[in-house]
Amino acid sequence: MSKLIDNVKEVFNKTAIYAVATASKNGLPNVVPIHYVKLYDEEDTILLVDNFMNKTTKNLNENPWIAISVWDYDRKQAFQIKGEANIITSGKVFDDAVSWVQKTMPQLQPKSAILLKVTNVFNCQPGPDIGKEL
Amino acid sequence: MSKLIDNVKEVFNKTAIYAVATASKNGLPNVVPIHYVKLYDEEDTILLVDNFMNKTTKNLNENPWIAISVWDYDRKQAFQIKGEANIITSGKVFDDAVSWVQKTMPQLQPKSAILLKVTNVFNCQPGPDIGKEL
Repeated sequence: MSKLIDNVKEVFNKTAIYAVATASKNGLPNVVPIHYVKLYDEEDTILLVDNFMNKTTKNLNENPWIAISVWDYDRKQAFQIKGEANIITSGKVFDDAVSWVQKTMPQLQPKSAILLKVTNVFNCQPGPDIGKEL
Repeated sequence: MSKLIDNVKEVFNKTAIYAVATASKNGLPNVVPIHYVKLYDEEDTILLVDNFMNKTTKNLNENPWIAISVWDYDRKQAFQIKGEANIITSGKVFDDAVSWVQKTMPQLQPKSAILLKVTNVFNCQPGPDIGKEL
């Protein structure tokens, strides 16, 4: 069953800037705003494009976990999405990433595509269910 | 010298929701949107109030590092602020945190105040200086 239920998808799809967190193998957290993030398929796979990443990909090379925070302040919904990442630098997924970015920003040359297989989604909206896994 | 130079402070102070990342000692990242975050003093100390935190404080108890992402999409400025946290549950800092929160949300009962001593600030705005420490 999909972890990305409808209201998670709605908030996720409406987000313009995603807060993407990783950590070094020693546990130093890193969090950066990333624009090119989208649902890649219906199997809970998310695509992130590395146009300007630095510490994020360094961390992923030693520790594959990603956490993404999305929120909709007006609708009072917030979720955290976690999963393991694969960095892809050639083939169909990479070509899809390049096409997607260059449709709006033709001057960009993505360095890699990152596929995130979602394993956990948590409610982050203040209230009695905060912190609960969906 | 302050790590929080003027344009960092401007973006920081204008932010309504802060993406706050921590990691477990095993390196599993966690990132959540936190509203009650502000500069506490001119010595690069940031106050975060724990009203509804869960994994964040669990992580901080075993790994004190925090990373905070702030961005101003319109002004094209983005920064990441890192430092080590102290969790405080009584005394002046805690009382300050409770007063601050209850001024706007009197029904809330903060669980702790978290003081973050800033050690590093990084530029996160796409361009030639992305990733550079300020």
